[in-house]
Amino acid sequence: MSDYDVIVLGGGPGGYLAGERLGHAGLRVLLLEADTVGGTCVNVGCIPTKSLLHSAKTYLHALDGARFGVKATGVEADWATMQAWKAKTVKTLVGGVQANLKRLGVTIVNDLGALAGPGRVEVGGSIQTADQVIMATGSEPVMPPIPGAEGRVVDSTGLLAIDHIPERLVVIGGGVIGVEFASLFAALGSRVDVVELLPEILPFMDTDIASRAREGIEGVTFHLGCRVESLDGEPGSSTVHFTDAAGEPQELTAGTVLMAVGRRPRIADSGAAGAGLDIVRGAIRVDDTMRTNLPGVWAVGDVTGRSLLAHAAYRMAEIATAHILSPGQAPPGQRLREDTIPWAVYSIPESAGVGLSEAQAQARGLDVTCAVVPLYLSGRFVAENGVKAPGAVKIVAETGSRVVRGIHMVGTYAPETIWGAAAVLENELTVEDLRQIVIPHPTVSEGIREASWGTP
Amino acid sequence: MSDYDVIVLGGGPGGYLAGERLGHAGLRVLLLEADTVGGTCVNVGCIPTKSLLHSAKTYLHALDGARFGVKATGVEADWATMQAWKAKTVKTLVGGVQANLKRLGVTIVNDLGALAGPGRVEVGGSIQTADQVIMATGSEPVMPPIPGAEGRVVDSTGLLAIDHIPERLVVIGGGVIGVEFASLFAALGSRVDVVELLPEILPFMDTDIASRAREGIEGVTFHLGCRVESLDGEPGSSTVHFTDAAGEPQELTAGTVLMAVGRRPRIADSGAAGAGLDIVRGAIRVDDTMRTNLPGVWAVGDVTGRSLLAHAAYRMAEIATAHILSPGQAPPGQRLREDTIPWAVYSIPESAGVGLSEAQAQARGLDVTCAVVPLYLSGRFVAENGVKAPGAVKIVAETGSRVVRGIHMVGTYAPETIWGAAAVLENELTVEDLRQIVIPHPTVSEGIREASWGTP
Repeated sequence: MSDYDVIVLGGGPGGYLAGERLGHAGLRVLLLEADTVGGTCVNVGCIPTKSLLHSAKTYLHALDGARFGVKATGVEADWATMQAWKAKTVKTLVGGVQANLKRLGVTIVNDLGALAGPGRVEVGGSIQTADQVIMATGSEPVMPPIPGAEGRVVDSTGLLAIDHIPERLVVIGGGVIGVEFASLFAALGSRVDVVELLPEILPFMDTDIASRAREGIEGVTFHLGCRVESLDGEPGSSTVHFTDAAGEPQELTAGTVLMAVGRRPRIADSGAAGAGLDIVRGAIRVDDTMRTNLPGVWAVGDVTGRSLLAHAAYRMAEIATAHILSPGQAPPGQRLREDTIPWAVYSIPESAGVGLSEAQAQARGLDVTCAVVPLYLSGRFVAENGVKAPGAVKIVAETGSRVVRGIHMVGTYAPETIWGAAAVLENELTVEDLRQIVIPHPTVSEGIREASWGTP
Repeated sequence: MSDYDVIVLGGGPGGYLAGERLGHAGLRVLLLEADTVGGTCVNVGCIPTKSLLHSAKTYLHALDGARFGVKATGVEADWATMQAWKAKTVKTLVGGVQANLKRLGVTIVNDLGALAGPGRVEVGGSIQTADQVIMATGSEPVMPPIPGAEGRVVDSTGLLAIDHIPERLVVIGGGVIGVEFASLFAALGSRVDVVELLPEILPFMDTDIASRAREGIEGVTFHLGCRVESLDGEPGSSTVHFTDAAGEPQELTAGTVLMAVGRRPRIADSGAAGAGLDIVRGAIRVDDTMRTNLPGVWAVGDVTGRSLLAHAAYRMAEIATAHILSPGQAPPGQRLREDTIPWAVYSIPESAGVGLSEAQAQARGLDVTCAVVPLYLSGRFVAENGVKAPGAVKIVAETGSRVVRGIHMVGTYAPETIWGAAAVLENELTVEDLRQIVIPHPTVSEGIREASWGTP
């Protein structure tokens, strides 16, 4: 008999959720985590950034309250307290994950672990056996070999731990992480520049929405189509040298430089390669049921390279556990459908979306009909923001079938609204079906309704 | 040839939306409105209350900012500016509705109008003819004949126009209107009592959620199961006499008393009875396609008694116009499905729901399985509110089929989240289907996901 039914490598969203589901089902589960359970997401990712962004939004609302009839003087951002609230939030949530795993009988060992082969994992120098192994080792920030970068840049984990609001911040990379940090510190008074290689920020987002998001973020100068060449300067004053879209050399000097050009699967110490797992473009290859090429070995979350989103890791963990718990009998729906996984950006303004952008649809050869409507058509949006605030919804629908293939939005509440769009896509509703879904009035989510009626 | 293709009586959500859809289709439309287009909703209902509640929330956030790292002194609620922002919002939205109707070629006449028979409407003393007539005359506050009430109470329209924050406010009625006003003024410092006849506030809401909503509203004393007997006192100091749940006489004295026991269809001056429309329990009887008993006469919105929600009026208008525009050929889905119309309450905390409560399901003889989960399971909820803030999600599912029949929630963002639940109910998804929908992390809407997994 094996030591465990299942061994899970990694205690982030994919790993701890698999542990919870399997423990709940009564399986003997060993969860290996070298650091703190909760992984990047809870400790140095989604949660701390959202905590700080909530503080920043509270600060902006206090500054902006006068027009709504809320007077205040001496409004001040107290970074130390923002950091303390963030730390308290993280501690609470880590404690919740730990307590839940313990309650469900999951054994947690504070060790990285390394896959030694099907059903075999090395833990602290000895081999533990299990019928099934789930690789959930996550990802780590990419540090490109730009001359002079080493020692002059911080990654997202480093910037989260900063003890002051930087006077000047340069962000290299205009993806979600770069944009959220840029928006956070701009809101708190930093002078912020973002240098992005591509012609638009947030490249997964439909450009009609991404451009509005960019224009809506106040206090940040975006340098698009720019390649960073090198860094130099003294500690506390780094100069970023880059080539702009016209091919001209440019430079920016700041006390703090964030490198946020992406993340890559964390594989090196996981034993994946040595045990014979297929590695494709630096990620563990899985099929749509999360199976790897080795029998009884599964992979979920960032390490698969399929998505870097925590909720995608949750979904992958659910798929893998559904198949582990019902061998050969899991429902046919238990497959990864990447086109119905939403994303959200918690910058100011917020944005969110699910499904195909117009460009992605065209790249697949689909003939699509699109509509973009402004959020000032929503009464609640106007009541809470005025007509000039940034906000829009875009719908991408197939021209013949009228099936909705993408819904994208920028504006208040977008991250909380978008799951309904995921439900629309999962059910392959048409534009006309969507029009029949009743959305409460007055809400900002009614913008989706307006967009459905605006789709020709 | 008739004077118009369609005459619409009433310029509220049901009426103006019908006008927009029909005008867009190229029909000749006359819209009659005695007051201001936008109706109760835009002028003295949904929109002004949400504007003021947004101001109140901004005020509370400024007061509560210190724990999130936002210092402020002299935080003060400036009622005159709150009222000015409200007025500006209403003016903007009324202007938008007017401009849109004009752009679509709809003729607006500032007259109540009265139905004179099929295809015939009296307008300013003469008869206008049309192929179709839509009755959208809305509703008005109920003023029950309680001794001494006249002259000592205001209705919601009156309270919206108040020029100061009342020191003491008594609200008669614990429905949506009563609860939203109670929460608004309690947030702004009024001492507020709510006297409700039933054993729980918000009677359409599942009691597990309604009780949490009630307990979460700070600064309001709720008197449940209490019958108001009479009012007396001088102007500016009214005493409300009521019998409490134990049958004991009680009284409350306040400068302002809001009567908010409900609304009734506005029929009296509409010509409905004289023209021969079936009136049942004070409402114009319609079938699920919004047809009345008279040929070519339709009714939508509050006047039908089917729902008092603006978005239900929108939906009814869309159903009626779909049938008018495609006689005999409207899609079978163009029928009113009351069980999938969500509702939202914008008090502090907010709440929302769609579908059956547990009690409603049992009253229909359904065997249901339910789950209630706290929102502190959501990382974003904890990051933005802490673990002690009020928040919960309840799911009501049929035991055999596992089809979700109701989703109810209290907590931040509930009104923006709930439309996804409407999509779930419209598609008759099971608990297991719902679990497969990916909700972004970290969001409060993930509470619905937690509830789906918590459903046994």
